[in-house]
Amino acid sequence: MKNSALFTDYYELTMAQGYWKHGMDAKAVFDMFFRRQPFKGGYSVFAGLDPLIDSLEGFSFSSEDLAWLESQACFEPAFLRFLENFKFSGDIYAIEEGELVFPQEPLLRVHANLIEAQIVEGLILNMLNFQSLIATKSARVSMAARGKKLMEFGLRRAQGQNGAMAASRASFIGGAAGTSNALAARQLGIPAMGTMAHSWVMAFDSELEAFNAYADLYPSNTTLLIDTYDTLESGLPNAIAAGKRLAARGCNFGVRLDSGDIDYLSRKVRSALDKAGLEKAFIVVSNELDEYIVERLVSEGAPVDVWGVGTHLVTGGEESAFTGVYKLAAVERNGSYQSVMKLSDNPEKATNPGIKELYRFFDSSGAAIADYMALEEEVPEKGKPIILYHPSLDMRRFRLNPEGDIKKLLGKVMEGGKRIASAKSMNDIQNKRIESAKAFDHTYLRFLNPHIYKVSISQGLRDMKADFVERFRGNNSI
Amino acid sequence: MKNSALFTDYYELTMAQGYWKHGMDAKAVFDMFFRRQPFKGGYSVFAGLDPLIDSLEGFSFSSEDLAWLESQACFEPAFLRFLENFKFSGDIYAIEEGELVFPQEPLLRVHANLIEAQIVEGLILNMLNFQSLIATKSARVSMAARGKKLMEFGLRRAQGQNGAMAASRASFIGGAAGTSNALAARQLGIPAMGTMAHSWVMAFDSELEAFNAYADLYPSNTTLLIDTYDTLESGLPNAIAAGKRLAARGCNFGVRLDSGDIDYLSRKVRSALDKAGLEKAFIVVSNELDEYIVERLVSEGAPVDVWGVGTHLVTGGEESAFTGVYKLAAVERNGSYQSVMKLSDNPEKATNPGIKELYRFFDSSGAAIADYMALEEEVPEKGKPIILYHPSLDMRRFRLNPEGDIKKLLGKVMEGGKRIASAKSMNDIQNKRIESAKAFDHTYLRFLNPHIYKVSISQGLRDMKADFVERFRGNNSI
Repeated sequence: MKNSALFTDYYELTMAQGYWKHGMDAKAVFDMFFRRQPFKGGYSVFAGLDPLIDSLEGFSFSSEDLAWLESQACFEPAFLRFLENFKFSGDIYAIEEGELVFPQEPLLRVHANLIEAQIVEGLILNMLNFQSLIATKSARVSMAARGKKLMEFGLRRAQGQNGAMAASRASFIGGAAGTSNALAARQLGIPAMGTMAHSWVMAFDSELEAFNAYADLYPSNTTLLIDTYDTLESGLPNAIAAGKRLAARGCNFGVRLDSGDIDYLSRKVRSALDKAGLEKAFIVVSNELDEYIVERLVSEGAPVDVWGVGTHLVTGGEESAFTGVYKLAAVERNGSYQSVMKLSDNPEKATNPGIKELYRFFDSSGAAIADYMALEEEVPEKGKPIILYHPSLDMRRFRLNPEGDIKKLLGKVMEGGKRIASAKSMNDIQNKRIESAKAFDHTYLRFLNPHIYKVSISQGLRDMKADFVERFRGNNSI
Repeated sequence: MKNSALFTDYYELTMAQGYWKHGMDAKAVFDMFFRRQPFKGGYSVFAGLDPLIDSLEGFSFSSEDLAWLESQACFEPAFLRFLENFKFSGDIYAIEEGELVFPQEPLLRVHANLIEAQIVEGLILNMLNFQSLIATKSARVSMAARGKKLMEFGLRRAQGQNGAMAASRASFIGGAAGTSNALAARQLGIPAMGTMAHSWVMAFDSELEAFNAYADLYPSNTTLLIDTYDTLESGLPNAIAAGKRLAARGCNFGVRLDSGDIDYLSRKVRSALDKAGLEKAFIVVSNELDEYIVERLVSEGAPVDVWGVGTHLVTGGEESAFTGVYKLAAVERNGSYQSVMKLSDNPEKATNPGIKELYRFFDSSGAAIADYMALEEEVPEKGKPIILYHPSLDMRRFRLNPEGDIKKLLGKVMEGGKRIASAKSMNDIQNKRIESAKAFDHTYLRFLNPHIYKVSISQGLRDMKADFVERFRGNNSI
């Protein structure tokens, strides 16, 4: 499934036939960008690029795909023959996975002929939107845990099988220590983690028997689920008994709370474990957690060592989609690129025209100050003052004399349809996420009502937009 | 990927090894049920069964899977050899796809040995949870559209590729007329639908040229997107010009609104089309729609013919997970089934023990009155009065003399690990959804603050629960 080029919106194919019939094989440049931060937050984490490159390399029509298209009575035989050889042969520039990103910025730029660029739209958006949503959620939960371990275990609540697999990947990028999903752990080479289920406890004649059986089998890796019958009256004393046997063998263990009030129970459990001489035993909690609950409990000092998060982490919870879109920015006409712009009836749906680069300015201490979209020829330099314009509110502008580093954020990742750099390790991508966040003042990383990071456009881009609007108004005498 | 039995939570495998080592190959019965209606609604639509059966039939460990398990240094060679031959060989009873379902009811019941039943948990929940969520959302949107067509086009915002594919299937079950996802349309045999993108309009020198080019190519299937520059001042007059040319050829067409106020614009557009003699031209709208917006606009009389819904339909929007769980209900001990019950620290997380059947009572006019969970031997009969108990509030009970049909909702769908009935067509499943809903008074189908449909337990089940609690309290002298 993952490589069928039919994984696209039907209209891409009807439009593709139209371009083909009109001989419109001009080069086009499309930007993928998003409009609004998810979770009312101040940042997103870019993710999904590496699997996207793999999928694009193998994106083609099978004979079943072509037979089905033929059955739609909408496509000419010659066009279907053309699709037989379809592959993506364009260039792609993208931000690195794990980087913090902001609305309006081109996260990925496609240079390809119109037909190819159009057919890959759905795949690009599907993969980048979802993984960026989850990497962002995971970064939020992971920051809320302030150094305590985050375990992703969302397989059973994820949106389909690939929803689970991609969520495990993106959660790890955001900061999770591992996943409960064994297949994802295998495929990604990240840690597999787990505790035990209520059914284990219920399958034995008694809770204590169940605990001891598990501890005997996995003495170096036991976490006992203590809420099957009654956490404080039954699970806890039984866990202490099983834990003392483990301690006598020199092994540590953990207990997991999956219901009840976490703050109240974790303190009771901590104190009982300590009193029993099991100070090293760790406490894992789960039960519909999200970043708000984790942050609240961490700041109240609940003695939790590992946060197990499923549903909200792998689906985004109350915000289940990333608002990424893919819009035409320039198209070749008579041998050179002509910038194009969508105006729309909603001002926030208007696009930034032209082929754009993206830069991040840092101050001399290494803190990120602002991001800057500029036309190719407008290369910013250290020590050379420039004016940064708000992308739509013309009156909001400011002068900047760049004194620190200027980082170009888009790099070429595919050329002629081929990957040009080897895939990074999952640990490297997670580290990138952590390093990227460090450059941002904590006020930008706040959960609610965050400080809004500046994303600006250049003088050239601002002038191009103004010209475009002027020209359109002129033509239509509005 | 879809058939790897590693698509499971890691703890299922550590527990499985434990059962194996202890010779616990007893038969177990697990129920899949959910705790809470999504979207604050009054019903859910059961979906995902047929692809689940396919996946279960092919669920096994590959040599790569086993090599990875070996690398985890947690599994014994003999257990890995046992997993080499693992396959699901149990029986499954389930509700029909498309049926309306309610909290606490067993939607699916697995009879298998403990190890098999445990390893398939993640797959079962992953597939049924997601498709039931989306089929429910789709039923809501589709009911809101009151007979107007619903088009699903969520591929680009879905949670991963399989998230898109499964969502197209579930949306169709809920009531959508088709999908924009070409691969889903091909694989499911459902209609592929589409309009055009802004990039088509922008790729031409003028909007009118773009419209005419598309209309010439697809005279019998053209929907013109009219908001690229300005809906009323540019898109609409150009669409009328293109539409008149189509009308002269005897062809109809549509226009699509993707921004601005739908109510306002659809009326303006309708009246301009009518004035131009294009009364048959249809209006398609899109732009972050959900059931609330659709219902509001339909009841205000906005002249919309087709509702295109993406993001909220394929992800669930603000509610992105279905609360399905999978719990042990009975386990074989010394040759006969012993019922088991999880109590938990949260009363709503307690389970219903035992092997249960599920019945739906109808009155003599065919209207659904109540659902009823009962032990195997408690078979309700027409004309034989029974008492229905609330699942947890013992004081809420009522006497029923069943006068209409009594439908047994769980049927056997797998036996010895094999499918026992052929897959139903997508149209049949959609019709099932529509028929099932017809038996419910409209008050149960209301979006907000719905009438709560009664789900009850039998005398035998009530007594079993009371005994269980009593016994546990006795043992633990609470």
